Amino acid sequence: MAKTTGYAVNNATSPFSPFTFDRREPGEHDVEIDILYSGVCHSDIHQVRNEWGGSRYPMVPGHEIVGTVTRVGSKVKKFKVGDTAGVGCFVDSCRTCHSCEEGLEQYCEKHLVQTYNSLEHDMKTPTYGGYSKLIVVDENYTLKVPEFPDLSRVAPLLCAGITTYSPLRHWKVGKGHKVAVMGLGGLGHMAVKLAVSMGADVTVLSRSKHKEADAKKLGAHHFVLTSEPDAFVKNAKQFDFIVNVIAAAHDTNAYLNLLKREGVMIVLGAPDQPVELDHHSLIINRRKIAGSLIGGIQETQEMLNYCASHKIMADVEVIPMNYIETAYERMIKGDVTYRFVIDMKTL
Amino acid sequence: MAKTTGYAVNNATSPFSPFTFDRREPGEHDVEIDILYSGVCHSDIHQVRNEWGGSRYPMVPGHEIVGTVTRVGSKVKKFKVGDTAGVGCFVDSCRTCHSCEEGLEQYCEKHLVQTYNSLEHDMKTPTYGGYSKLIVVDENYTLKVPEFPDLSRVAPLLCAGITTYSPLRHWKVGKGHKVAVMGLGGLGHMAVKLAVSMGADVTVLSRSKHKEADAKKLGAHHFVLTSEPDAFVKNAKQFDFIVNVIAAAHDTNAYLNLLKREGVMIVLGAPDQPVELDHHSLIINRRKIAGSLIGGIQETQEMLNYCASHKIMADVEVIPMNYIETAYERMIKGDVTYRFVIDMKTL
Repeated sequence: MAKTTGYAVNNATSPFSPFTFDRREPGEHDVEIDILYSGVCHSDIHQVRNEWGGSRYPMVPGHEIVGTVTRVGSKVKKFKVGDTAGVGCFVDSCRTCHSCEEGLEQYCEKHLVQTYNSLEHDMKTPTYGGYSKLIVVDENYTLKVPEFPDLSRVAPLLCAGITTYSPLRHWKVGKGHKVAVMGLGGLGHMAVKLAVSMGADVTVLSRSKHKEADAKKLGAHHFVLTSEPDAFVKNAKQFDFIVNVIAAAHDTNAYLNLLKREGVMIVLGAPDQPVELDHHSLIINRRKIAGSLIGGIQETQEMLNYCASHKIMADVEVIPMNYIETAYERMIKGDVTYRFVIDMKTL
Repeated sequence: MAKTTGYAVNNATSPFSPFTFDRREPGEHDVEIDILYSGVCHSDIHQVRNEWGGSRYPMVPGHEIVGTVTRVGSKVKKFKVGDTAGVGCFVDSCRTCHSCEEGLEQYCEKHLVQTYNSLEHDMKTPTYGGYSKLIVVDENYTLKVPEFPDLSRVAPLLCAGITTYSPLRHWKVGKGHKVAVMGLGGLGHMAVKLAVSMGADVTVLSRSKHKEADAKKLGAHHFVLTSEPDAFVKNAKQFDFIVNVIAAAHDTNAYLNLLKREGVMIVLGAPDQPVELDHHSLIINRRKIAGSLIGGIQETQEMLNYCASHKIMADVEVIPMNYIETAYERMIKGDVTYRFVIDMKTL
């Protein structure tokens, strides 16, 4: 076993504190990664605070991991020591169900081993995430990180990037499509960059006037201030797709009415309370609401390669480990442009 | 003008009474139809009682019309006197928008002239529906009714039939698909017959044990009694499609969890109150909810031809015109197997 340190919480209300724990010795197919950067996802807060229930403590969060390979198992083919590697939201899956066979491991029908707050296949060893110095992961669940100018800006691609990339590809979003992005945070800003890069005509929908300049800077072609009284009337039936990443309560029917006939609202986040859906919003123009969950390993690799070749990275604020509590408070207020990334050297 | 008689209500609470009104003289492209049968749709009740708002009175409901052509305009090509003709939920549309050009007139972006409770293109002449002796409709919005053994059982195809046929075709439902039908009424029983005829493996979901025999008689392969405590656990992730025709409040998330990964819930009816949608129900298995509204003229004709060749008709209870109030009361209680059809000779 390799001793390592991380930052953990011991229950839903305790603060973070240093935590020493064991990582397994790399097996034949494992790579050991010295973590350089770990992105901070809003779902970290939900899980740390047990807002979804079932949280396991002590918990070391973090599923947007970039680092350097320090050891490789004897049968590892994809990686060698010194390579840059990435780890996303899961570190293993059953490998035999239909979803796994189709490369859609995120929908594994048996047991998805999530990067933290989960159990290994033995159903007793807890998983610990990226707020730590070291991680050991099967090479099949580890991503190759191509050349990027700034690795701190790459970490968020492992969750925010793939979560938005996967549905844009699934729905074949591209040239000729009008895409609206609801909510300009960690996911939203990636949705804007990716949809723009795919050739879509992109509009940011926001209640905050001050986001207009940001939206344009990210590449959005248009901005709709949804707090204007006639915003929903003037923009009715305009969009082929709405990427809905709002995790707060919202009037989903008002937004659905912004979709053209056949339009699709892609939901990637979930408000605490259910949304109130009027079926008429879907029936009248044969509209759809569709969910999507992160992406499979193959697609995550494709996304990383795509982002490298299109020079797409997240906009981040790099923080030291001991800033994490403040970071969470600022995220809850929406005060981050657009992702906090922990510099793990500061641990 | 041709004087005709029908049954109308004068306001949201008045009973039906005989009503004499004018139908236009058939224009060059019009056909005049002597109505034989008029189906009774649940939306008739909503509109008669102004439950959706904006109802126009006097109102002659009815949009499931089958009759005999009695006169044709000088330029009519599709019909001759004596032909059997059908009229569905609309009698005209703008004919120039994208939806009309694509043969999806039901989604007309300018003005869909509905068969009743609507206005003609002059935006002042009210439309009156099928609870009447005579109707005059442009041949382009009139359906040819092929040979069927019983025309009373054909009338409901013009709304209940096309409303279920269109989404089944849109989503390419067929052999290899597991389809569940939620709600065994006018729409539901057609969904069962059509999905079975298309080769799908069909399950009826119902809270009423006594519907099991009916479901099997309609051709359903399976029946799930949803009031059983473990019904939703045992049937989790079973279906490719759920056809949701329940117009009453229901736990939509429980039903969504019966869908496989990529599964689609097709919503065709709308409860009075919005349903409470938890985005997780969609995200976890990349599921979709999709609406659909009746069908275009070309597809309605295709559906009639399909039903004739597959010997599919609605199951109906033929009633005299003066039974309509009782019929509405029975429909509200769900006491109809599965569609009331008015024999217009009884007017």
